[in-house]
Amino acid sequence: MNPFTNDPAARVTAIGEVGLIELIKAWLGPTTPKAPQGIGDDCAVLRPYPNGVLATTDGVVFGHHFDENATPEAAGEKLLKRNLSDIAAMGGSPRDALITLLLGPDVSLKFVEGFYRGLRACAEQNNICLAGGDITSTAPHFFAAYATLLGETTNPITRVGGQAGDSLWVTGTLGGSLLGHHLTFEPRISEGLFLSAYPGIKSLIDLTDGMAKDCHALFSPGIEAVFDISQIPISPAAYTQSQHTNKTPLEHAFCDGEDYELLFVLDSKADEVNLITQWKNAFKTPLNRIGWLSAISIPESPAELRRLDTGAPLPAWRGYEHLKNVIHTLQK
Amino acid sequence: MNPFTNDPAARVTAIGEVGLIELIKAWLGPTTPKAPQGIGDDCAVLRPYPNGVLATTDGVVFGHHFDENATPEAAGEKLLKRNLSDIAAMGGSPRDALITLLLGPDVSLKFVEGFYRGLRACAEQNNICLAGGDITSTAPHFFAAYATLLGETTNPITRVGGQAGDSLWVTGTLGGSLLGHHLTFEPRISEGLFLSAYPGIKSLIDLTDGMAKDCHALFSPGIEAVFDISQIPISPAAYTQSQHTNKTPLEHAFCDGEDYELLFVLDSKADEVNLITQWKNAFKTPLNRIGWLSAISIPESPAELRRLDTGAPLPAWRGYEHLKNVIHTLQK
Repeated sequence: MNPFTNDPAARVTAIGEVGLIELIKAWLGPTTPKAPQGIGDDCAVLRPYPNGVLATTDGVVFGHHFDENATPEAAGEKLLKRNLSDIAAMGGSPRDALITLLLGPDVSLKFVEGFYRGLRACAEQNNICLAGGDITSTAPHFFAAYATLLGETTNPITRVGGQAGDSLWVTGTLGGSLLGHHLTFEPRISEGLFLSAYPGIKSLIDLTDGMAKDCHALFSPGIEAVFDISQIPISPAAYTQSQHTNKTPLEHAFCDGEDYELLFVLDSKADEVNLITQWKNAFKTPLNRIGWLSAISIPESPAELRRLDTGAPLPAWRGYEHLKNVIHTLQK
Repeated sequence: MNPFTNDPAARVTAIGEVGLIELIKAWLGPTTPKAPQGIGDDCAVLRPYPNGVLATTDGVVFGHHFDENATPEAAGEKLLKRNLSDIAAMGGSPRDALITLLLGPDVSLKFVEGFYRGLRACAEQNNICLAGGDITSTAPHFFAAYATLLGETTNPITRVGGQAGDSLWVTGTLGGSLLGHHLTFEPRISEGLFLSAYPGIKSLIDLTDGMAKDCHALFSPGIEAVFDISQIPISPAAYTQSQHTNKTPLEHAFCDGEDYELLFVLDSKADEVNLITQWKNAFKTPLNRIGWLSAISIPESPAELRRLDTGAPLPAWRGYEHLKNVIHTLQK
């Protein structure tokens, strides 16, 4: 849906900030409790976090993270789901969120309503309290929204800790997210909670900018990844997309952004068979062991990403790098 | 300073997201601890908040909250100070912040560096940990930054609770903020902490959109405010500005945004003399009793804001309403 309208009576400016906040409270229903726990005071007052706080922030910008083909509900859900994926990547549970809107004066009320209905649905599904936020007016034809999501865990799994000999695993399937998965994905909260409790999970991230880029976060100096290419779970969408690009399905699986799957390192001494058995009992989500961490084999020319079958380095795939990719867009 | 540059080598895109994050870590120094407490993992892992969390979010958008006349350091400080003012308005202490940047590809690295040096200075002054955030690329000629600030208090002072007979007090001086105060103000953190501990403080807010608008947050149904006009602390800047507008200094004091002063309600039975004595011992910040809450005197036409001397209603001043004011800007 187009977020903007030429009809002055249908714009957010027809109602103003105070009126819009009242509508937002109505749209959110019980997902925003009474102030000061919910919307309405200078700060939200949240219940204690006795075991520490997981905190993350991520946004959606119209024309960048979604476009006119997305429903406003799907855009609102995507905003929370992007943040949920970060909580999942620490093995945590979500709890409280603040929402920031940046609105041009020509944004339609109907779009904002749909966006908040999507936020509410996702918040209800994940037991998230929408505690407050901010609205800022911007120049026309602009819509962006940010969430800060707070969560809990007694055992956060960080990115570091993998050593040579440890195995590398990924959930779901990879690549081709632009064909729809970037809106319809399910954040791997339950899977992340399972992994944070499973013995031997040493490091964990979610894949947002393509595995070829994101996996580097798991390597200490002197470590490279050796991928069993036959085990990479290439998504059907990656095959579809490769018919219209000059890239192979494998390159799409390694380089496309917005998979929102979990990539993790398992200790070399951990029980792999038990992991697979327990996983299958708990989830329908695919799980694949896609490679190993290894000491860099040729110190003079570290490849960092290598094929198991031939030992050859993978191409210099880099995934999605935000500010660099903008240059390309501008130059096209 | 102009945030944008035509020189490709001086732009954020020359270095890319990964390089920019490394620079940001260097600019922030010890205000961002090692991951996962600081920048670098999927979520920041913050120490426990055993007494609950105060959470607020606020931003600065170039062309809206600051312009080319501001240094980037002042813009960065303003971002944190806006959020600090919300923590002050609950009587809390700040602790952890997440920072979100929305950057056009033509934003200059030098501007971003200055912005982060301002953030660091303000964080050091207020003992804030800059725990993480997000960077999103946008269309050219756009710069915005948001902070989510978390804080602590054992005794949050909300907006509600004032009753007829209670007195109304304000810190500092009001009006004319556009002439400089909107950048140079000091958030009233110490004053807010003092008030949260003082017996009889019933409700508290910070003034961001003009007292004429913001004071309504303190009224329950059936209550109006009666102002002792002689006690309104009109700032010198309000007098200066009134020379160039068709408004009186008093109207500037009531209606200009961005005072970032505290407005609070004191119980009618509280010891006013003791409050003033203790305040003067602790602070140089002016404190004025500017009026009272009163039962609405003419139920058929509630004025909500009234003069003590004549009993007449104050003009229909409304302060700054975000989305409505944009319409005016567009129509001018």
